[in-house]
Amino acid sequence: MAPTPREKFLEVFPSLVDELKSILVNYGMPPEAIEWYERSLQHNTPGGKLNRGLSVVDTYTILKGHASVDELSAEEYKKLAILGWCIELLQAYFLVADDIMDQSITRRGQPCWYKVPGVGDIAINDAFMLEAAIYSLLKSHFKQDSYYVDLIELFHEVTLQTELGQLLDLITAPEDSVDLNKFSLAKHSFIVIFKTAYYSFYLPVALAMYVAGVHDAKDLKQAQDVLIPLGEYFQIQDDYLDCFGTPEQIGKIGTDIQDNKCSWLVNKALELVTPEQRKVLDDNYGKKDAKCEAVVKQLFNDLDLETHYREYEEKVAKEIEAKIDLIDESRGFKKDVLTAFFKKVYKRSK
Amino acid sequence: MAPTPREKFLEVFPSLVDELKSILVNYGMPPEAIEWYERSLQHNTPGGKLNRGLSVVDTYTILKGHASVDELSAEEYKKLAILGWCIELLQAYFLVADDIMDQSITRRGQPCWYKVPGVGDIAINDAFMLEAAIYSLLKSHFKQDSYYVDLIELFHEVTLQTELGQLLDLITAPEDSVDLNKFSLAKHSFIVIFKTAYYSFYLPVALAMYVAGVHDAKDLKQAQDVLIPLGEYFQIQDDYLDCFGTPEQIGKIGTDIQDNKCSWLVNKALELVTPEQRKVLDDNYGKKDAKCEAVVKQLFNDLDLETHYREYEEKVAKEIEAKIDLIDESRGFKKDVLTAFFKKVYKRSK
Repeated sequence: MAPTPREKFLEVFPSLVDELKSILVNYGMPPEAIEWYERSLQHNTPGGKLNRGLSVVDTYTILKGHASVDELSAEEYKKLAILGWCIELLQAYFLVADDIMDQSITRRGQPCWYKVPGVGDIAINDAFMLEAAIYSLLKSHFKQDSYYVDLIELFHEVTLQTELGQLLDLITAPEDSVDLNKFSLAKHSFIVIFKTAYYSFYLPVALAMYVAGVHDAKDLKQAQDVLIPLGEYFQIQDDYLDCFGTPEQIGKIGTDIQDNKCSWLVNKALELVTPEQRKVLDDNYGKKDAKCEAVVKQLFNDLDLETHYREYEEKVAKEIEAKIDLIDESRGFKKDVLTAFFKKVYKRSK
Repeated sequence: MAPTPREKFLEVFPSLVDELKSILVNYGMPPEAIEWYERSLQHNTPGGKLNRGLSVVDTYTILKGHASVDELSAEEYKKLAILGWCIELLQAYFLVADDIMDQSITRRGQPCWYKVPGVGDIAINDAFMLEAAIYSLLKSHFKQDSYYVDLIELFHEVTLQTELGQLLDLITAPEDSVDLNKFSLAKHSFIVIFKTAYYSFYLPVALAMYVAGVHDAKDLKQAQDVLIPLGEYFQIQDDYLDCFGTPEQIGKIGTDIQDNKCSWLVNKALELVTPEQRKVLDDNYGKKDAKCEAVVKQLFNDLDLETHYREYEEKVAKEIEAKIDLIDESRGFKKDVLTAFFKKVYKRSK
């Protein structure tokens, strides 16, 4: 049977692990350190849905006018897959650190890396090394390409943007100190755009555009102008589903209310509440207590947040579709790239 | 009165903080996040001896044949100082994370960043942002230069090398689990070369060489072949002084023995011990106990490690001087660059 797109993408990973290990071998690193590094790469990099990595290959395929990924040559596929794995490494770098900062216990159905016996805070250095792997791979596979510096600068910029989003999130919504005065829909928008949209939506498309030779500043801007609001919408769906989705839909039990998360729902609620309802929110949001959580959920229902969410969803979907319609394809960019993303996101329930 | 070299170098820093803050302002970041970032930059970047940063300026001055830094034009000075500050940012990135991993309390006479009230594990993301600052500064000040990619690749490579040294150190000498079988002089050599010598000794010189236009691969290798053993020697001095230096000399009370550090002294001792002495080491090294520490110190004296250290020092100093003598200056590299480093290190007592 032909491999699924995900399986085909996964088949590239072992060769990258071998390549990264060989750098350490060439430095003369003792075997126990090489084994440690391999274990960190394996534990932290594959294992997720790999949507971001797969998007690089898919976007390139559309830009080249192919009907299927199978029309790419083996070398072409590998190059795009490597960039996809670089995004997965970037995400691994963030998640290893985020899990420490959030004191999470599990990730993707296994212990968080810092929770693996014997790892602990060494995970911080392992996170650094996951990031470093990106630039080792870019150098060995793209140094000869005219757009090599563009790839490096793009990764640098998106890394900083993601860190800025993470910083604002951490200081706005610390798990142990609730202050809803710090929240606002504007801040929520900044956090999700910087923490998620740039690296999850814009980065895969921009990488594929560079390789495809479609990277006029106007085209990168066209992509960004659609993908950033789409990424924001995706994260707002996530926030919505955390509270209103079933555990079957989202594969976990939502904890945003108890965790004092700066979620779209609480920010929308803050816009709508009466002074009395605001007091209820202040008294119950971010408490590690199922009763308080139930009070907040009741308030969200009283405020009819589901309807407000549907209104937001319809409005933003229309705006995004209108922007996609107006895409200028004269320099080789293709609106289908964006339509493909839009279809995956719109009205998803998981 | 004319400013000291350190004062002159420090005068550049505020403009870099302003530049980095302006990136966040342009992204529309809320003021509390910009203030947080500035506080992290100020707390973690200046405040040390700044030897690494100053070395970039000094090396360039020598390569250009000037007698003093004051002969550089204002723009020339600023460019070199920016690269110096990039090394200081790299070091800040490492130290913020190292202090968490080592559970240190103070650094440079003030609380470690993660120990500052309200910071905690957010320091991990702050470390990431200190690293990101390097590439923002390189882009804004060096993008037009022919050697821009060389600078980026050099920072990437040295960052990975330092992380590899840190990894090997962390898994060889965890503070809470003593196993001297993991130690060896070979491993010690790898750790100190990767964790310290590349970024502290080779990096400042290589950066200055790129700007000075003296960066033939042969010349970079000449520099590296001297600076790496010199950096190793410097760290071995550090290990020696931790045990045999006075607190006045080293500005702190040495704790390597109690902290189970993979120090040159314990590795040399492991080469020299009888089976009985080995048992004494196994039983007393790495224990948080002043009596055990005194037993180890007595053993170090019995083994005459001071004499062994002096022998090592004389041997390595002769080798380094011999290599400096043989430097080929035909492409513009200058042995004085290396002599200047050697003089600062040889027989230092602090």
